[in-house]
Amino acid sequence: AHDRIRLSSLLDKVVSAEEAASHIKDGMMVGMSGFTRAGEAKAVPMALAARAKTEPFKITLVTGASLGNDLDKQLAEAHVLARRLPFQSDPALRKAINAGEVMFIDQHLSETVEHLRTHQLGPINVAVVEAVGITAQGGIIPTTSVGNSASFAILAEKVIVEINTSQPMGLEGLHDIYIPTRRPFREPIPVVGAESRVGLPFIPVPPEKIAAIVITSKLDSASNVLPPDAETAAIAGHLMEFLGHEVKKGRLTERLQPLQAGIGTIANAVMHGFIESPFYDLTMYSEVLQDSTFDLFDAGKLNFASGSSITLSKPKYEQVMADITRYKPRLILRPQEISNHPEIIRRLGIIAINTALEFDIYGNVNSTHVGGTQMMNGIGGSGDFARNGYLSVFVTKSIAKDGALSSVVPMVSHVDHTEHDVDIVVTEVGLADLRELAPRERARVIIDNCVHPLYRDALDDYFQRALARGGHTPHLIEEAFSWHVRARETGRMLAPPHLAASA
Amino acid sequence: AHDRIRLSSLLDKVVSAEEAASHIKDGMMVGMSGFTRAGEAKAVPMALAARAKTEPFKITLVTGASLGNDLDKQLAEAHVLARRLPFQSDPALRKAINAGEVMFIDQHLSETVEHLRTHQLGPINVAVVEAVGITAQGGIIPTTSVGNSASFAILAEKVIVEINTSQPMGLEGLHDIYIPTRRPFREPIPVVGAESRVGLPFIPVPPEKIAAIVITSKLDSASNVLPPDAETAAIAGHLMEFLGHEVKKGRLTERLQPLQAGIGTIANAVMHGFIESPFYDLTMYSEVLQDSTFDLFDAGKLNFASGSSITLSKPKYEQVMADITRYKPRLILRPQEISNHPEIIRRLGIIAINTALEFDIYGNVNSTHVGGTQMMNGIGGSGDFARNGYLSVFVTKSIAKDGALSSVVPMVSHVDHTEHDVDIVVTEVGLADLRELAPRERARVIIDNCVHPLYRDALDDYFQRALARGGHTPHLIEEAFSWHVRARETGRMLAPPHLAASA
Ligand SMILES: CC(C)(COP(=O)(O)OP(=O)(O)OC[C@H]1O[C@@H](n2cnc3c(N)ncnc32)[C@H](O)[C@@H]1OP(=O)(O)O)[C@@H](O)C(=O)NCCC(=O)NCCS
Ligand SMILES: CC(C)(COP(=O)(O)OP(=O)(O)OC[C@H]1O[C@@H](n2cnc3c(N)ncnc32)[C@H](O)[C@@H]1OP(=O)(O)O)[C@@H](O)C(=O)NCCC(=O)NCCS
Repeated sequence: AHDRIRLSSLLDKVVSAEEAASHIKDGMMVGMSGFTRAGEAKAVPMALAARAKTEPFKITLVTGASLGNDLDKQLAEAHVLARRLPFQSDPALRKAINAGEVMFIDQHLSETVEHLRTHQLGPINVAVVEAVGITAQGGIIPTTSVGNSASFAILAEKVIVEINTSQPMGLEGLHDIYIPTRRPFREPIPVVGAESRVGLPFIPVPPEKIAAIVITSKLDSASNVLPPDAETAAIAGHLMEFLGHEVKKGRLTERLQPLQAGIGTIANAVMHGFIESPFYDLTMYSEVLQDSTFDLFDAGKLNFASGSSITLSKPKYEQVMADITRYKPRLILRPQEISNHPEIIRRLGIIAINTALEFDIYGNVNSTHVGGTQMMNGIGGSGDFARNGYLSVFVTKSIAKDGALSSVVPMVSHVDHTEHDVDIVVTEVGLADLRELAPRERARVIIDNCVHPLYRDALDDYFQRALARGGHTPHLIEEAFSWHVRARETGRMLAPPHLAASA
Repeated sequence: AHDRIRLSSLLDKVVSAEEAASHIKDGMMVGMSGFTRAGEAKAVPMALAARAKTEPFKITLVTGASLGNDLDKQLAEAHVLARRLPFQSDPALRKAINAGEVMFIDQHLSETVEHLRTHQLGPINVAVVEAVGITAQGGIIPTTSVGNSASFAILAEKVIVEINTSQPMGLEGLHDIYIPTRRPFREPIPVVGAESRVGLPFIPVPPEKIAAIVITSKLDSASNVLPPDAETAAIAGHLMEFLGHEVKKGRLTERLQPLQAGIGTIANAVMHGFIESPFYDLTMYSEVLQDSTFDLFDAGKLNFASGSSITLSKPKYEQVMADITRYKPRLILRPQEISNHPEIIRRLGIIAINTALEFDIYGNVNSTHVGGTQMMNGIGGSGDFARNGYLSVFVTKSIAKDGALSSVVPMVSHVDHTEHDVDIVVTEVGLADLRELAPRERARVIIDNCVHPLYRDALDDYFQRALARGGHTPHLIEEAFSWHVRARETGRMLAPPHLAASA
């Protein structure tokens, strides 16, 4: 382990996790590595959760995105988290958030470090960053994610490094650490393609800021996405057909444009759809690289992938890490500020594919709030990509909870993405191309193409009655949430068929 | 007039407005200059409206933003408009849109030309662009706005130029025409400050594409914003106090950061608030430059202003145009793609000040849809700035229609800007700083600081009852729109006081 610390003056900073964690005190703001369950600091947060059992204290925890190894669960259950940002995806933490016990700030993932840098958030008292090693200059080499780690370490008062000996040393050279220059003299960010390397392969921090080093060997936890099923395959099929059509119209080539895919089961399944597609020489400029990225490499479909983390299933993790030097020339991991930067996303013309919980007849999307009130995960980077992409696609199954809920509704109960930022919506039923359509026209193609047969007549009935009342975006405002109200009261959005006349 | 056409081979293209308009045929897509009532083509659209009286036809009309001289009214009433994008602000056109007679595509103002360039929209059959003149190379010199004129002219099959002899020749040299390079090899946009000049002072088009030139002398119509009043002065006061506080905290200097201000009465009044403020050496990187911009120049407060149009009251127009060469060294007009570009807005760290119709207890903003259904103007550039700015401020009076409506509501009836994009909300009652707060905390500061006394108890009552039900963003989904429903039915959001127990 100690040969991973190449700056010998740092060797005597190696301490136990408990001792390192003692730098973190009640009321502090702590920045930790970790992005969608990859590359999170592991030993120190566990030591914190353990300590809280005998000595209660609270912190504000800022990360890249969600943590693996049940850390958000352990920290939530130990009541360590007063505030949490900018993303999470843990059932126990979610429960605490929805109960109002943890104040959760749901943020566009590109923005958190801007807020820190401008002192609107912060200061970060302690940064805890997982690394494969420390360079001879004291540079921190991240592991399977970059997330916000670089800015946390640069801006923090103290830095704790967790050297994870299970993460292969071959990850060195994968990362591209670029920090935008300071306003008012900020220069353009020089990334002009997924392949652009514009920064350092390590996080530069003055070695004297490194307060403690912990040696650990706990692995990232495996991704929890489910394999593709009939519905997600149908969604992928509709999208491939649409993209093929765009190629025929001359609006895209078969190389497409850089692809982004959101987190979760559906987005991963959709990316798998490219394996059997006619498209080739693809590139990804995304956040999380899931199993599908490496399957696309192996299928000879993908040329290059840029992301902020690598989150894999257990078998895929083993295969990829064993072979990381072969994949490395075609991979870059960047700070999430850069992977998700509006400047770059717009410049590259990204095809953004994200997942909705529900969308409405006008194409507004709810990705976060079940029933308008209960937080699921958070907006994550979906807004960074949907707003600034060349093409913004949202996918979802047409129904949820065995058909008790329709994912296409009269009006979404919470808006994460307005109709302006939603070009294409796809369910297993079909795809609606909403580009350059007025709201009334959007409703028509959505109802005709995306809605489950169980709900189509009722949705069309709502739309017809709203149309009769008029407006640019017709609604029956007193009835717009009636499906959600009924679901709250009865568990189902529509009355059972024999009562459906009153739906 | 003819001395304004410096390329002599174009002299024989001069024709009447009617003849020029004859290039525009039923079913065509037409791109016209004009941005918030400034620099619109005038003679050709009037000729179109006149022709439609005897010969019915329909077009898709794309502009920069709203048109002056009642052109949107005339074209709407002549039933010429099948489709209209990306913005408008005319009462007659608004009526046709809300009746479903004109399909209106309400778009982020930075995005329209991207859609044209990628053939998602278009092609533009004819572009009609107002100019002060044509250079010896055939370059078109715009007038009081750039808007989308450059890309319209470059991408159109044919170009009609309206040379407006009332617009002073001194406008030459004011414009900075930069078009992003083509994907997949797009380069960073080199603008690094409001002062950056990165393009040409004219719109480059091959002279053979200029199909007709019309000479006109009709002036821009005067801006219709109302003067500051007690409420708008109070809003400005709260904002100045907040900014002063930010300076004290060391988060801003007294030079602040580049300012953007939205359209309309309230935004203009707020900008006037800077005249009496302690801030100095200010810059603007905005869209529309209103009277307040020139008042700030004259007060010695403003160093430089970049925008996409100049829209002034009648006396201000006369004064500024007479003196344009004096102002010119401190002014740039850019294509709206550049004035509103996410890349630049984020880079410069803009303080964005836009107007809401209503906002809700969580800080979601509705800027466009009265009662959730009736289009007012459109989202305009508010999303470009609110999403990407350093600080996103929304202002509004706390009540509308003499108090019959509250502009702070349980849930907005339409979402244009989600809570993620809203940092500060201000009414004449007070200011709420929402940064880094969870939804429950946002509600508390909004209810305590911004709501009109008439509505405060009722709003707090809603929030308390929602809180009791729980959730990350607590709502009583069955009651969330009850205020809007009551307003629709009775004209008032709350029952009169003696019935208020049941509110
Ligand atoms: C929206 C999101 C939750 C979907 O996740 P997924 O794994 O692809 O989709 P699933 O279909 O498995 O749905 C996840 C859960 O939501 C539920 N769900 C789906 N649609 C629903 C709806 N309309 N109403 C209520 N619940 C719904 C599912 O039933 C499932 O619940 P379960 O976990 O109890 O089984 C996820 O993509 C997300 O959090 N997105 C927001 C952040 C984001 O887009 N990030 C991308 C860049 S970081
Ligand atoms: C929101 C907007 C309409 C406000 O305009 P304004 O001139 O500053 O504000 P006013 O208070 O005069 O309000 C305009 C109208 O809206 C009405 N209004 C205001 N609040 C309202 C509310 N909560 N509900 C219903 N109507 C409301 C006013 O009564 C007034 O109506 P009237 O024209 O019949 O008198 C305007 O700023 C806009 O269109 N914004 C969206 C686009 C944008 O932000 N662009 C900026 C970059 S382009």
